[in-house]
Amino acid sequence: SSSSMDAQTKRPGFLEFPYLSTPHRNLMLELVSKIETSLVSQLLPPSLPPDVQYFQNESGSSQGTIHIQSGNEDSMVDFILGSWIHSKLPTGELNITTLTAYLNKKTDAPRFLLEFIQSSPTSLILLLDLPHRKDLILNPNYLTTFYMDTQLDHLRQQLEKIPETRPYLPSSLYIRCALSPTAVSIRIDCGPTGSGRIDEVIRDHVSPVAKQMLDIWLYKCAYGKRELMEEEIIDLEKRDALVNKKTLDIDLASGLPRLFGQDVANRVIEPLEKYFKA
Amino acid sequence: SSSSMDAQTKRPGFLEFPYLSTPHRNLMLELVSKIETSLVSQLLPPSLPPDVQYFQNESGSSQGTIHIQSGNEDSMVDFILGSWIHSKLPTGELNITTLTAYLNKKTDAPRFLLEFIQSSPTSLILLLDLPHRKDLILNPNYLTTFYMDTQLDHLRQQLEKIPETRPYLPSSLYIRCALSPTAVSIRIDCGPTGSGRIDEVIRDHVSPVAKQMLDIWLYKCAYGKRELMEEEIIDLEKRDALVNKKTLDIDLASGLPRLFGQDVANRVIEPLEKYFKA
Repeated sequence: SSSSMDAQTKRPGFLEFPYLSTPHRNLMLELVSKIETSLVSQLLPPSLPPDVQYFQNESGSSQGTIHIQSGNEDSMVDFILGSWIHSKLPTGELNITTLTAYLNKKTDAPRFLLEFIQSSPTSLILLLDLPHRKDLILNPNYLTTFYMDTQLDHLRQQLEKIPETRPYLPSSLYIRCALSPTAVSIRIDCGPTGSGRIDEVIRDHVSPVAKQMLDIWLYKCAYGKRELMEEEIIDLEKRDALVNKKTLDIDLASGLPRLFGQDVANRVIEPLEKYFKA
Repeated sequence: SSSSMDAQTKRPGFLEFPYLSTPHRNLMLELVSKIETSLVSQLLPPSLPPDVQYFQNESGSSQGTIHIQSGNEDSMVDFILGSWIHSKLPTGELNITTLTAYLNKKTDAPRFLLEFIQSSPTSLILLLDLPHRKDLILNPNYLTTFYMDTQLDHLRQQLEKIPETRPYLPSSLYIRCALSPTAVSIRIDCGPTGSGRIDEVIRDHVSPVAKQMLDIWLYKCAYGKRELMEEEIIDLEKRDALVNKKTLDIDLASGLPRLFGQDVANRVIEPLEKYFKA
């Protein structure tokens, strides 16, 4: 079909965010730029095959991009993963935008996670968190260092206070466990006529909070030194691998085939498994 | 003062719940009765000193009861703890009612936790959960057994649907971590004229859910057999002791002195430390 041809010729890149509103796109660009500037000497060039960097279904109604940059050997960054998915569904347009940062076994510091799930022009689900990499019950000092001393809950409260938001609980119990106790996990719903308001909420509220959380992550996690014992490193690798495998299964292996068909999904997921060590 | 004398002569027991509404008192009595009936051959008589079973501050404006029964050597129950606190504060009356069940190292199955915090006649905070005793990220089978297979999230959803409820996040990040991903953690607010409605919510909604959750706990946790390896038992003891110490510190050591003065608080907390191995 011609729409399929168009989409194939176009092949928008990760950083174009062609389906996001201006404040939403600006936020994503600022975050990516902040990461690239801060970690410039640590990140290797993107290395995914072109048909995984950009992919679509047969009809072109679903499009996706994945952008991965690994950290070099001096870095504590394992890899940075950005992605967006756009899908024209019978119920409306679905846009999922993510930016996640994974650290390697040189540190047990938290990851960075940002995910927008937008299934209507005036409402969205936002997950914004520094997910922990140790059992917080057994490691209260870790809780103090990364979640109390950083005042992360104040950032969460800023977004909770907005009248259009309410708490959002992911349907997967495993994903609930993977989120930290200060995770922003909210649904923002500005009502059928709220397209101006949702832009305002993203620009004036979500954007500053996401940027502050990324700053905390960069300063305290991606750069902070941590002394780990041999046994802690073994436990960390085991835990990271398990979380990666489970979240890959829950997020991608269940969602991608529905939007892109099984063949495209397999093609995309396979190279990711290497990064996720899943 | 005469009110102090009255309170001293009265010394209501744990099971009297003299300051609760009828549906609230009925619920507590049904739950305690259910536990006692189900575990009748396993529970030892209460053993706390009388001045810990009942305590009050100097003026008599704050009263409290604690009821503890340990499990015998055949039981997987470590101890059952019930308590209520009533306090006349300048801002109004505060009533805290709890019922918790702790298992011993023969099983790693979850605990039972019920806590009502009522600071106005028409609103309350409810925590109702089977708190996990293992890191759920590292033990997805545990998550499946106790939280997915039991459909606990359906019970949570029943209460979430009530229009007068909204999610409640405990201020302590550690307590947030101690709650399971299916925990009921809500504030029920029926507005200044809602005293009839809050009775209805407790009788028709909270009560059936709490009873079903206790049934699941009794059947699946207090009676279910679990095969544990030596190393798992060591980890379990370490984790239980840490959770106990932290929750004792957060819940009682910080709250009791404010309501009862430091002397009474010390008298009450000291014998509890033995049970909590804190």
